[in-house]
Amino acid sequence: MSRLRPGRSASRRHNREQSAAAVSSLNQLPWQQLAYLDKPTEPIDAEGVLKIHDAAMRVLEDIGIVFLHEDAREILKKAGCSVDETTMNVRFDRDMVMELTAKAPSSFTMTPRNPDRALEIGNGKCAFGMVASPPNTMDLERGRRVGNRADFRDMLRLSQIFNCIHFNGGYPVEPIDIHASVRHLDAIYDLLTMTDKIIHAYSLGPERVEDAMEMVRIAAGLSHAEFDASPRMFTNINSSSPLKHDWPMLDGAMRLARRRQPVIIAPFTLAGAMAPVTIVGSVVQQTAECLAAVALLQLISPGTPVVMGAFTSNVDMKSGSPAFGTPEYMRAMQLSGQMARFYNLPWRGSNANASNHPDGQAVWESQNSLVGVLSGHANVVFHAAGWVEGGLSASFEKVVMDCEMLQQWIYYNRPVDLSEDELAVEAIREVGPNGHFFGCQHTQDRYRTAFYSPFLSDWRNYESWLEAGAQTAHERAHRLYKKLLTEYVAPPMEDSIREELEAFVARRKEEGGAKTDF
Amino acid sequence: MSRLRPGRSASRRHNREQSAAAVSSLNQLPWQQLAYLDKPTEPIDAEGVLKIHDAAMRVLEDIGIVFLHEDAREILKKAGCSVDETTMNVRFDRDMVMELTAKAPSSFTMTPRNPDRALEIGNGKCAFGMVASPPNTMDLERGRRVGNRADFRDMLRLSQIFNCIHFNGGYPVEPIDIHASVRHLDAIYDLLTMTDKIIHAYSLGPERVEDAMEMVRIAAGLSHAEFDASPRMFTNINSSSPLKHDWPMLDGAMRLARRRQPVIIAPFTLAGAMAPVTIVGSVVQQTAECLAAVALLQLISPGTPVVMGAFTSNVDMKSGSPAFGTPEYMRAMQLSGQMARFYNLPWRGSNANASNHPDGQAVWESQNSLVGVLSGHANVVFHAAGWVEGGLSASFEKVVMDCEMLQQWIYYNRPVDLSEDELAVEAIREVGPNGHFFGCQHTQDRYRTAFYSPFLSDWRNYESWLEAGAQTAHERAHRLYKKLLTEYVAPPMEDSIREELEAFVARRKEEGGAKTDF
Repeated sequence: MSRLRPGRSASRRHNREQSAAAVSSLNQLPWQQLAYLDKPTEPIDAEGVLKIHDAAMRVLEDIGIVFLHEDAREILKKAGCSVDETTMNVRFDRDMVMELTAKAPSSFTMTPRNPDRALEIGNGKCAFGMVASPPNTMDLERGRRVGNRADFRDMLRLSQIFNCIHFNGGYPVEPIDIHASVRHLDAIYDLLTMTDKIIHAYSLGPERVEDAMEMVRIAAGLSHAEFDASPRMFTNINSSSPLKHDWPMLDGAMRLARRRQPVIIAPFTLAGAMAPVTIVGSVVQQTAECLAAVALLQLISPGTPVVMGAFTSNVDMKSGSPAFGTPEYMRAMQLSGQMARFYNLPWRGSNANASNHPDGQAVWESQNSLVGVLSGHANVVFHAAGWVEGGLSASFEKVVMDCEMLQQWIYYNRPVDLSEDELAVEAIREVGPNGHFFGCQHTQDRYRTAFYSPFLSDWRNYESWLEAGAQTAHERAHRLYKKLLTEYVAPPMEDSIREELEAFVARRKEEGGAKTDF
Repeated sequence: MSRLRPGRSASRRHNREQSAAAVSSLNQLPWQQLAYLDKPTEPIDAEGVLKIHDAAMRVLEDIGIVFLHEDAREILKKAGCSVDETTMNVRFDRDMVMELTAKAPSSFTMTPRNPDRALEIGNGKCAFGMVASPPNTMDLERGRRVGNRADFRDMLRLSQIFNCIHFNGGYPVEPIDIHASVRHLDAIYDLLTMTDKIIHAYSLGPERVEDAMEMVRIAAGLSHAEFDASPRMFTNINSSSPLKHDWPMLDGAMRLARRRQPVIIAPFTLAGAMAPVTIVGSVVQQTAECLAAVALLQLISPGTPVVMGAFTSNVDMKSGSPAFGTPEYMRAMQLSGQMARFYNLPWRGSNANASNHPDGQAVWESQNSLVGVLSGHANVVFHAAGWVEGGLSASFEKVVMDCEMLQQWIYYNRPVDLSEDELAVEAIREVGPNGHFFGCQHTQDRYRTAFYSPFLSDWRNYESWLEAGAQTAHERAHRLYKKLLTEYVAPPMEDSIREELEAFVARRKEEGGAKTDF
């Protein structure tokens, strides 16, 4: 390809043709975000929201949050917070927290290198991300294995192929065979060349975050000023619950905020372990931990986009193991949604489960998780496809099964048409009591597009299914993911940009990459 | 046991002790109906409800419904309907339909022989029924087989053991090895002796319905007047869509109405086959077919309890196979709920799926179905446990998996407590930024009952799970159902009553049972 850039329209047409070629085995819905049709499910009333808010404010005012980063404490102290330099504890005035929180936008748009893949975060929309960060991967043929670059790249291929996957919120499986000092360089190179969707930078030390921002900038062909002008990527930080934000996470979040890139703040408040044994108490703590970081980031860069993260679930009190997709998780997600709307912030949940196998339990817990986050109107869903084993494994077949479920939830949110044609009284009259609707004109005009068409469900009768090999959903998902990998086509990228990325990676590797001793 | 009846309190205590003994392997929630906490999900507004209502009324006024029963036509004609005796078509005045519908109660209580198992139908409550009427059964060990009395009885044992199963809505699998003429006698004898929950009579000819009512009366030790005084059982009729009610269903429904026993009227309106290809049009037809029967039954016995049944789903337009648990089904259920509330009637949905195996597809389709019916506030859920293969098989393992899901939905609907103790600010203060909540008093006081405890989910870590045999949910469900069957204890029944039931069955068998030629 010439080093001259083709016009954008030519580039996009090329892209669409390639995308279409890539999915010939997959009868999927077009690229689109989920847009909520129903009202959110709200288990508590406005007075209840105020109670949780007041409790969170008491935590911030009377108990405080530990900030393990001196720059953060310095900024908060200057703004009027009460800072104890021995314990590194910071207490906040509630009015200050509310004023700062009000500076964050209620919605924003993130645009990756392919502008067709831009995502609206907030405003009644939802974006789904691939499973992120498991140290292991598994599939039906080869079982469970430690994460590696080959599987990482296969996961990226699937994340690019499925239209219901809107972003990568990290590495879908940790490529552990790449040394930690340079892993981010190879991994982000793969993310940016093998997908054209929004990516995420791990807040694990300054080099990783800065390298990620620079690579995203190069991949999109942007100047530094253009990069800083609007959201192009994001990071997700977890508080070190209870009541603590650690150095690498804060450092990364502050670096992104300085360049006005979005930060998701997701306390991992497991009720009964790192948070109170009551779900409501865990949401109180989650809210306090999140807003403390929101306040810091708004002080650094007022108006920088932030997302309230919700990861409150419960532990199994018998074993101490985390549980997901439980009734408690569903309610925690809906309560989190109510709190986020109270603060006028977008919010993030997850599609999680605790099953060790992509079996029935994995599916019912995932569906519970999806009901919790979607009925609560989450704007970002992490781990939407592929998560099993409480996040310790990424399952190839679960990716495919989850995408089938995600597509159905997108379709479910289509508006209901009540036109006279849809009410169909004339079709009912025409067919009458002795007819059948298969043949009538009303059906003929609509049957091709009347209903959702799944790519994974098998609706044949038992005999046909048996004759065709009696494959379970797990087995069908296995065959489909293998086939899709053979059909994957990389999204186009100009040679000049690829070369610039390669040169950057080479240079940073020569420099030693990132420190691995924090 | 003496033929003298023990006092009711002694009998009930005995029952509770036996029930407790029966479930030693099952850490399940106590017997309770689901009570809705959230508002129902309503995809259309009040104006939209009026549009569907108006369209249904136009079907009843201008097109009409065929009633294949001369008594029914006679009653409707006398009430002012326009009846064509050649086509057997009946057209209704909309005011008459609304006046008659208003006579039906918005809620009612059904009481089986064990009054502790009484069910409230309506009033924000939901009751779950076992899978009903599949001709086949399957399990992991023996595969798929034709329904038979041994499997039928095992299914009844499970329906009695699980507290989240509130009634049997028919035979959980058809005992096809019993001759059709006497099958209902043996099957209802088993239902009434092996369970103490509400049962259903098939409206398949006068003898079956009359025998069922008589046997329910005997089992509960009631006089005829006592039986007629309040709901003790029910029937479910399906219209022969489009636009037709057939003779056996009408005959059974009318017989129950005359004795003021409840009738569920569930049109099987598959969009694109027996109903318009649009979901909204199918709900219009479902509403018209249902209300036509409601009007008839209210003419026969004003105030007799009726339930609006909803079975609208879509077909796979490629194969013509019925599909369940689809996005369309979810919306159809919610729309049905809106219509039922408009008419002030309780309503019935189903937990259905089209999978040929109790695999991931069976679970995600079931969860979709449950979300549809529960978010729409169904008051009765048929086929809540065990249905696979579009209703052509009852799966033993699916019974167990579904019960795990049903329990979670019951638990999910518990109210959210926002007391100061639940907000847990003091516990957060006590634990502080360097502690852990496992040991604190707030946790110690609550941990035993803090969270939902599943009986089927495996939340151990991967290594422990692997070491314990790496059983999938399907395999665990298999082992559990087998173990539960060994622990089953029949609910107590007085000898005198059992003997009376046995004598009735023997006499009716001698008389030839029921006709088998309709």
